[in-house]
Amino acid sequence: MRGGNEKLTGLILARGGSKGIPLKNLVTVGGIPLLERSVKAMKDFGRFDSIWVSTDHLEISACAYKLGVKLFNRSEENASDNSTSIAAVAEFLQYNKKVEILCLVQCTSPFLQPTFLNTGYDLMLNGYDSVFSGTRDKKFRWSVADIDNVESTKPLNFDTSNRQRRQDRQGEIVENGMFYFTKREILEQGVFQGGRIGYVEIPEEYSMDIDTKIDLLIAEQINKHIANLSDEHGTPDANYFG
Amino acid sequence: MRGGNEKLTGLILARGGSKGIPLKNLVTVGGIPLLERSVKAMKDFGRFDSIWVSTDHLEISACAYKLGVKLFNRSEENASDNSTSIAAVAEFLQYNKKVEILCLVQCTSPFLQPTFLNTGYDLMLNGYDSVFSGTRDKKFRWSVADIDNVESTKPLNFDTSNRQRRQDRQGEIVENGMFYFTKREILEQGVFQGGRIGYVEIPEEYSMDIDTKIDLLIAEQINKHIANLSDEHGTPDANYFG
Repeated sequence: MRGGNEKLTGLILARGGSKGIPLKNLVTVGGIPLLERSVKAMKDFGRFDSIWVSTDHLEISACAYKLGVKLFNRSEENASDNSTSIAAVAEFLQYNKKVEILCLVQCTSPFLQPTFLNTGYDLMLNGYDSVFSGTRDKKFRWSVADIDNVESTKPLNFDTSNRQRRQDRQGEIVENGMFYFTKREILEQGVFQGGRIGYVEIPEEYSMDIDTKIDLLIAEQINKHIANLSDEHGTPDANYFG
Repeated sequence: MRGGNEKLTGLILARGGSKGIPLKNLVTVGGIPLLERSVKAMKDFGRFDSIWVSTDHLEISACAYKLGVKLFNRSEENASDNSTSIAAVAEFLQYNKKVEILCLVQCTSPFLQPTFLNTGYDLMLNGYDSVFSGTRDKKFRWSVADIDNVESTKPLNFDTSNRQRRQDRQGEIVENGMFYFTKREILEQGVFQGGRIGYVEIPEEYSMDIDTKIDLLIAEQINKHIANLSDEHGTPDANYFG
């Protein structure tokens, strides 16, 4: 019983090769492999017509198979260090003609919650052509300058003579890569974000993604912290308002 | 034996009242109070003419006294939740006429290293009027939009039709608050950053600051990680180049 009539497809791109952490998609946070965490959140969301994992790696295939999701065998050329997500998605769309809206989920974002996907999909049904996840950031940003040549850096997002306190700033939305909802016609233009673009604002502590080994240690701490929070207050809503 | 002739003064603003974590300036990371960690890095840097702690709190005063730094009794009006750092610094400059260059150090940045201060001060002696610490950030940023009214967000620091991979981007410098070197005449204009503005680029894992309880747990993990790194490679340089 979905809200709209369009075919919503969930996809995880999980190649075997990864720098920094070997077989990153299968490392565990809170004892659960990243791939399994993502699939669980996607299933609990409950509005996907189908959920797919695109991979080039046997062990990842085996994990996906156990989780009961569909497998797409990613071509070698789309699983190299230089291949792009949009090319891997194009290959998948070519194969699967039923997709009308794709939700690309990044399984290195361990704290995806079903409610975040729900907020995103509701936005899609409410007039957006693409919706991504992001976090609000209020930091002060400066241009990269040639410091050796005593070049002055320039403020990018504030006025030095009238500098607000951080808490008084509206801030910006920083993409966190957790997920991207996109209509097929936008993807066929070669981008994840096009047309009318919306976002789901993810609380900062849920927003991290895992790239390096120190990130894994940090994720374990956040995982415990979130478990405590849920015991006290239940799962948070994705606030997409100010 | 300093490189220049100007009086360089180090200052930590450490008030007693703090939201989130009570008496935050005295909580420990790696078993050492934040205030003590900062003072140690400042002493090891070795080029300050004097090091000061400005506080309104007895326990912080006692800690500073034990560390052998100078104490400045912060006025009540400059130690409230609404008081600004620049006002607290103005009060200090009024009292201490010898300051020519001030280095404000934030003791909630637990991973300050003497080498970072060294790089910053060398820049000051090399033609800059103010130098701050920051980290390079390559994330994709978007404007805050009225999502409920199906307003489209807009990209702020890239072109959607020609989106580079993150590793190919030059990025921006995000202030991390760890320290600010500023000439007196700039501070007297009411700002920390003015004239010719430079920065020290701090490696990301050294860059965090502590605001909430979860940050403390994360800092403990980073602290262990950095201890391991130093065993292997020694302390890193502050890269202020690309």
